[in-house]
Amino acid sequence: MANGVTMTKDAVSAAAWTKKDLLGLRELSVEEIRLVLQTAESFREISLRPIKKVPALRGKTVVNLFFEPSTRTRTSFELAAKRLSADIVNITAQSSSLTKGETVLDTVRNLEALKVDILVIRHAAAGVPHLIARHAAASVINAGDGAHEHPTQALLDLFTIQEKKGRVAGLNVCIVGDIAHSRVARSNIWGLTKLGARVTVCAPPTLLPPQIEQLGVTVSHRVDEAIRAADVVMLLRIQHERQEAQLVPSLREYRLRYGLDRERLKQAKPDVLIMHPGPVNRGVELDSSVADGPYSVILDQVTNGLAVRMAVLYLVSGAPKVEEES
Amino acid sequence: MANGVTMTKDAVSAAAWTKKDLLGLRELSVEEIRLVLQTAESFREISLRPIKKVPALRGKTVVNLFFEPSTRTRTSFELAAKRLSADIVNITAQSSSLTKGETVLDTVRNLEALKVDILVIRHAAAGVPHLIARHAAASVINAGDGAHEHPTQALLDLFTIQEKKGRVAGLNVCIVGDIAHSRVARSNIWGLTKLGARVTVCAPPTLLPPQIEQLGVTVSHRVDEAIRAADVVMLLRIQHERQEAQLVPSLREYRLRYGLDRERLKQAKPDVLIMHPGPVNRGVELDSSVADGPYSVILDQVTNGLAVRMAVLYLVSGAPKVEEES
Amino acid sequence: MANGVTMTKDAVSAAAWTKKDLLGLRELSVEEIRLVLQTAESFREISLRPIKKVPALRGKTVVNLFFEPSTRTRTSFELAAKRLSADIVNITAQSSSLTKGETVLDTVRNLEALKVDILVIRHAAAGVPHLIARHAAASVINAGDGAHEHPTQALLDLFTIQEKKGRVAGLNVCIVGDIAHSRVARSNIWGLTKLGARVTVCAPPTLLPPQIEQLGVTVSHRVDEAIRAADVVMLLRIQHERQEAQLVPSLREYRLRYGLDRERLKQAKPDVLIMHPGPVNRGVELDSSVADGPYSVILDQVTNGLAVRMAVLYLVSGAPKVEEES
Repeated sequence: MANGVTMTKDAVSAAAWTKKDLLGLRELSVEEIRLVLQTAESFREISLRPIKKVPALRGKTVVNLFFEPSTRTRTSFELAAKRLSADIVNITAQSSSLTKGETVLDTVRNLEALKVDILVIRHAAAGVPHLIARHAAASVINAGDGAHEHPTQALLDLFTIQEKKGRVAGLNVCIVGDIAHSRVARSNIWGLTKLGARVTVCAPPTLLPPQIEQLGVTVSHRVDEAIRAADVVMLLRIQHERQEAQLVPSLREYRLRYGLDRERLKQAKPDVLIMHPGPVNRGVELDSSVADGPYSVILDQVTNGLAVRMAVLYLVSGAPKVEEES
Repeated sequence: MANGVTMTKDAVSAAAWTKKDLLGLRELSVEEIRLVLQTAESFREISLRPIKKVPALRGKTVVNLFFEPSTRTRTSFELAAKRLSADIVNITAQSSSLTKGETVLDTVRNLEALKVDILVIRHAAAGVPHLIARHAAASVINAGDGAHEHPTQALLDLFTIQEKKGRVAGLNVCIVGDIAHSRVARSNIWGLTKLGARVTVCAPPTLLPPQIEQLGVTVSHRVDEAIRAADVVMLLRIQHERQEAQLVPSLREYRLRYGLDRERLKQAKPDVLIMHPGPVNRGVELDSSVADGPYSVILDQVTNGLAVRMAVLYLVSGAPKVEEES
Repeated sequence: MANGVTMTKDAVSAAAWTKKDLLGLRELSVEEIRLVLQTAESFREISLRPIKKVPALRGKTVVNLFFEPSTRTRTSFELAAKRLSADIVNITAQSSSLTKGETVLDTVRNLEALKVDILVIRHAAAGVPHLIARHAAASVINAGDGAHEHPTQALLDLFTIQEKKGRVAGLNVCIVGDIAHSRVARSNIWGLTKLGARVTVCAPPTLLPPQIEQLGVTVSHRVDEAIRAADVVMLLRIQHERQEAQLVPSLREYRLRYGLDRERLKQAKPDVLIMHPGPVNRGVELDSSVADGPYSVILDQVTNGLAVRMAVLYLVSGAPKVEEES
């Protein structure tokens, strides 16, 4: 039985991965982004097999260290690790000794003393994974830090665009929603512009960070116009907290001005891709008719996220090759 | 080392399992129930080995998706999956993105996009596993839905009766307790009557559902008479909430009228079986002297539950054979 | 590839382990303590391999049954079990059916019916692991019971002292802190005195249990004098609750009188070892300059804890040999 990963020549001959950590797309070169996407391509097929498991990371230890709750991202990393045969331990902030006042770095130092290989970190504060990475010998994967970066989300988005459109370069990508508070937007802006896409961001002024243009994006307040020009429309979740903070007048108002429904979609290109990092606020930023419609690739994003996370775990673990399982 | 499962000729030659899901005993034919019991018989021995593990479901992914907390059933399914070498992920409602307003079906669609094979679902609302099963390509196992069904519990009860009595057909089974709110009672009524047992239910009128006789059972309000006639007495847990809702006057009163203690047990047949799905409310529906006494098979039920859940995971996974492990 | 454990002749030829359980160091003979330390020595190296996994406990089931939250000890046992290829299930009191009023023994009986091999128990009440061990066929490992014992912590402390000093016998070990409420102190006192160390305990009178001298230790209220004489200084965590209960005047006062900072450390021997069971209350019982300084072996303790827990799981499981993995 040949359960091993068959890497394409291209993937293998590409620049070898040299980074200990994956902290953000800002830090990645175009070649490194391409290497992740190529590696993910070769891992994608594993989850379609009857036996969804390869021994690539057998005997490695991965820790999901989540200081913010997340079932979706945690589960995606957990399955990615298990399908690579790694051992994985879940630690959430509620149950951690943080409640005894221990600092984040003490928690990490203790995990390192247990000889863990990879720390997957989510934290409500921007920069915490970077801080940890500087102090840890283990690899650190940023699974979302504050409003800063969520690199595996952007990589899975790039993978999905590449898969559906055959390329990223030259595409018009329109990101609609709460840009100011979105790590998904920020990571995608870095990744998309590096790979040569033109990015337009579209949001109420209160949800746009100042000087966002400096990241190489165009700002538009006319959502219909932006959607008409887009090859890809990426919707962001609007948090109820924003309404409470009076950054948007009401969810109903937001929907009318920025929500994507069947009517507004009619103006889009006939081969537009509709993307959303999930979970979708149905009836707010995205109508169910669109979320579940023919242009939506939202569930492909989830599937590709698993392959991308397998690739990232594999690359940072520094495993030089994927062995055949006998 | 021969760690594989040696299936009996009978089990293998029985009607092959064709159902994607296990939702309830109402939906199962007599042949299907027998097939589960036979398969469980061949799996039971695995947990008695020094190395309690077979590779039957290696590379398969099982998700325990529990919208209601349950340590016992969750742990039983978790161990069943692990002893079959499956990968298993636990998701509980508290930590899931349901708190972000995601619908149950969105949660399931996301898990399906991660290419999971089996969803074990517990939910406080009747019918949720059925709803999910209609929309999911993955197999769904109902681990308890509201007051509706708890099929693996009934199957392990049938297995235990069969094991201890050599048969189910023709036996008098008396179910005592809160029939109205019990998914265990409902699944057992379907299973027991299908296999030819005579079922008597015995409860205060407030805890009896209307028209329960239509399920083919006899209603008795005379618990002593019912116990005298029974080959098997199945006690149900009385929830403290029922007292608060004034469905029973007091737990003390309930105990006097319906509780099984040493005195009441004296009237029973000399080979009566005492069963309870657990956890036992000691001193209410069942006295410790009886729960821990010679007629009780409560812990056998737990042991058999593991074998039955291994069988169900194995059957719905559609694995055509159990391989030898080398 | 030779991934198996190479046991030294000494370890193998030592007295075989005969105890079903590890409940406390009080119950262990000197030979048994030495056997654990020797076995841990042979397991220590596994966590330094590229593939950190041996098949020693494959097909065994370990349950982490924690009635008190603990990320650190739970994670250490979880990784120890996984690196021995055991299956491990985590159960915490919050999610257990204890909330339905089930007794501890019922929980344990149910787990036993699932044919688990080892129960790792933490409980806020002293003696609960002993109670469980008397009723369970499974092996019980005490992971901390009230203020009573925390045997694997003391064993890892002994291992660390032995590793760094080459011996335990004849050393002066000074334990500073809340002796009265510390299971770590109690287990260490048993272990250290059995192996021939001289133990001095040093604490405010309110945090010293009456008649502690009967355990064979010397009581000192002069921390500076005690530190000057010590080969090993073991600091204990001071709980904020003690201040609330007015057992210490203030944390600031405690720090001044008993805390170990750079200044106080100057009086110590030039090869003193600084130990702490973690998590450290930085700036209270231990200053960061000392906790992270050259004399501190706090993170070695964590690393050695993993090896000690692997050894204990291995020994109580009664596995007669560690097989080579092919």
